[in-house]
Amino acid sequence: MTDATTIAFVVYPGLTILDLVGPLQTLGGLQTVEDLFGTDTRHQVTVVGESLDVWPTDTPLRVAAQATFDDVPHPDIIVVPGGGRPTLRQLGNDRLLDYLREVDRSADVVASVCTGALILAAAGLLNGRRATTHWGYHHLLDRLGATYVPERWVEDGRYLTAAGVSSGIDMALYLVERLTNADMARAVQLGIEYDPHPPQGSIDWSTVDRDMLRPVVEANAKAALADHPDVLARLVG
Amino acid sequence: MTDATTIAFVVYPGLTILDLVGPLQTLGGLQTVEDLFGTDTRHQVTVVGESLDVWPTDTPLRVAAQATFDDVPHPDIIVVPGGGRPTLRQLGNDRLLDYLREVDRSADVVASVCTGALILAAAGLLNGRRATTHWGYHHLLDRLGATYVPERWVEDGRYLTAAGVSSGIDMALYLVERLTNADMARAVQLGIEYDPHPPQGSIDWSTVDRDMLRPVVEANAKAALADHPDVLARLVG
Repeated sequence: MTDATTIAFVVYPGLTILDLVGPLQTLGGLQTVEDLFGTDTRHQVTVVGESLDVWPTDTPLRVAAQATFDDVPHPDIIVVPGGGRPTLRQLGNDRLLDYLREVDRSADVVASVCTGALILAAAGLLNGRRATTHWGYHHLLDRLGATYVPERWVEDGRYLTAAGVSSGIDMALYLVERLTNADMARAVQLGIEYDPHPPQGSIDWSTVDRDMLRPVVEANAKAALADHPDVLARLVG
Repeated sequence: MTDATTIAFVVYPGLTILDLVGPLQTLGGLQTVEDLFGTDTRHQVTVVGESLDVWPTDTPLRVAAQATFDDVPHPDIIVVPGGGRPTLRQLGNDRLLDYLREVDRSADVVASVCTGALILAAAGLLNGRRATTHWGYHHLLDRLGATYVPERWVEDGRYLTAAGVSSGIDMALYLVERLTNADMARAVQLGIEYDPHPPQGSIDWSTVDRDMLRPVVEANAKAALADHPDVLARLVG
């Protein structure tokens, strides 16, 4: 048995909590299945933040990390969740961006959910790469040097990006299969009973204008990055 | 405009975090859509616990409530998430069970996700009712006086129960439609980009033995409820 593969999930104030928890529960489920089956592969999830403080999310739930960035400087895999205005604020947070650049030097997989892709892009990690994000923020991803692809998840080299919010579960199950095999992924899927039946059916993308949130998104960017005119100019110049 | 409908989500130490966050993000999304559209209906989500302490979950993420049980004695809707051994421990927690009995006297909807149904049943709220829970724990639901139904979510009068973990998202979208209308539910679904594509396909239930976890579940019950022999006897007598 080799050392466990470390999968770190980033938290920051105001994040969209399902962006984090979807893949965290899924990859934590891999750890549970490995324990149950006594497999050769070993994966260990952790949650990292700038501090261990208790932070707000985009819901009334408050959350806290398990470890600081300094505690986990070189995870094998990192997952960055997204959100609305608070996530845009992180595009000007050099402490987070520097951490991600350092992690990127040695990580096997650098992943994001939703607008977490904008954070990766702001750190310079998605230049010229195919990537995805929440449908309402697609134009910002292009402006930060990536090429937006309207898929559920997108893999380009070591970079794995999921679309909005709930898509992180699908991305994580894909990652479980890539890290182990399809049977393990199916065991994790059964554990979290991921047999989705959206009561209103699938999203009919032919009716969705992916630019409809643009005024809201640009107002959010201006409010979030008033103190970072250089970053703001990249987004809405 | 009427007063907002209060939707309270219960937290307790060791819960399965996606059980909580799936419907919390979905019903929180309803609040966001209502704000955006300026609708007549108003819904407000909150997270309640015995205290505001920071608690562990079944992942390395730690969480804290927004309000105590005393702060929110009569929410219009309550949602109880589940989990493994720590959830079974709650079956002997009179403080929680008494709170749920009190809430039940006036609530419009009493809901659970996963093994949260066992907590509702232990409080005596599902006697003789059709309900669902995580597939691996179905026999405990029957032993606590309900009738297990293997569906994604089950509605019986004011009681709405979802199957394992991720099923809370589907249940919550059903609830959004019931509380408002299908267009609102579709707007929430689009906001959280819930267009699931499980990479390994749907769960093939014909291959699943719903009793396969029984030894693990019964060992968990014995460990969790060693100090509550009366409750334990109801589960594994």
